[in-house]
Amino acid sequence: MTDAAAKRRGRPPRTEAADTRDRILAAAREEFSERGYEKTSVRGIAKAAGVDSALVHHYFGTKEQVFEAAIAVAFAPAANAPDAVAEGPLDGVGERLTRFIFGVWENPATRKPLLAVVRSAVNNEAAAAVFRRLVLSQVLSRVAAQLEVPDAELRAELAAAQLVGTAMLRYVIKVEPLASADPEQIIVRIAPVVQGHLTGP
Amino acid sequence: MTDAAAKRRGRPPRTEAADTRDRILAAAREEFSERGYEKTSVRGIAKAAGVDSALVHHYFGTKEQVFEAAIAVAFAPAANAPDAVAEGPLDGVGERLTRFIFGVWENPATRKPLLAVVRSAVNNEAAAAVFRRLVLSQVLSRVAAQLEVPDAELRAELAAAQLVGTAMLRYVIKVEPLASADPEQIIVRIAPVVQGHLTGP
Repeated sequence: MTDAAAKRRGRPPRTEAADTRDRILAAAREEFSERGYEKTSVRGIAKAAGVDSALVHHYFGTKEQVFEAAIAVAFAPAANAPDAVAEGPLDGVGERLTRFIFGVWENPATRKPLLAVVRSAVNNEAAAAVFRRLVLSQVLSRVAAQLEVPDAELRAELAAAQLVGTAMLRYVIKVEPLASADPEQIIVRIAPVVQGHLTGP
Repeated sequence: MTDAAAKRRGRPPRTEAADTRDRILAAAREEFSERGYEKTSVRGIAKAAGVDSALVHHYFGTKEQVFEAAIAVAFAPAANAPDAVAEGPLDGVGERLTRFIFGVWENPATRKPLLAVVRSAVNNEAAAAVFRRLVLSQVLSRVAAQLEVPDAELRAELAAAQLVGTAMLRYVIKVEPLASADPEQIIVRIAPVVQGHLTGP
């Protein structure tokens, strides 16, 4: 919503505090994705944002909470996507889920926080917990809920494994030819696998 | 080979130097898998092995070379497996590859160095290079060579993506119910996917 739109609806314009929060979150995303969770400190984030450490703690709490807030904000534009993925016809869910995930990775604005989550989650239990909560359960549990089979959760996780592994090899480890392949060339092979895990025999 | 067997074949028994090398490699595996590549130092490895840093450099060279040697030694028992995976009949390659990878992960002796590779490769380019060289090309290129299709390498990498992603979610991020599922329950779902990537339409 723009400030003008907010005013028309009777809400106050963005305050200086909101700007400071945004600046802290942007700095946090930058630090976490560059250094990973363990090597990032609240002090380093505060310095990069040009504020005092106490202010970071005041707004967000612990390092884990700053991490979760920094990641959550980056996924906010995609917050409604899980509904769209889960709620369409079941025989297209594999392609919808695959396109959703590739959309997030191919978008530079969301790739960085996602790299931060992946880099951090493999080395740190607190970050792994954020990964499980935010990335997996937000999307996976909604998809699994649509499947009326006893092993729905395991199926959804194996579908996620194909997507997570592809992202790892393409965007993180950068294995060729996968890293340079056209996204459509990958999607055409991955989507039926995801579909098969979810609704196959 | 035992010392006695070595003697019978005219080779010298294991020297003290060989024992020291082994101790350094064991310490290196422990350090890299606990701390990841970046936070591990040659000095820390030397200390854990009870030797001088100069000796580590003398035997293995740089930190990257220590890392590669530590990892390679752990995979030595499985060194012939890629042949067995690649050389059997093509219509069983998916299951053979899947069982090989799960065998390495489920074996505590090889799980630790593999965790070290994954944790390190995600955060460090030198470790990612070792991952590409050792883990991927050792197995993947041999499998791809068996496939007589133009996109064999991409297919092999997407098959690897299913395996890497499953390992990530099961052993590293520990997502339930995948983390506690019986290996056979997973293999029965993964093997056909790996097969499909390699030899499917």
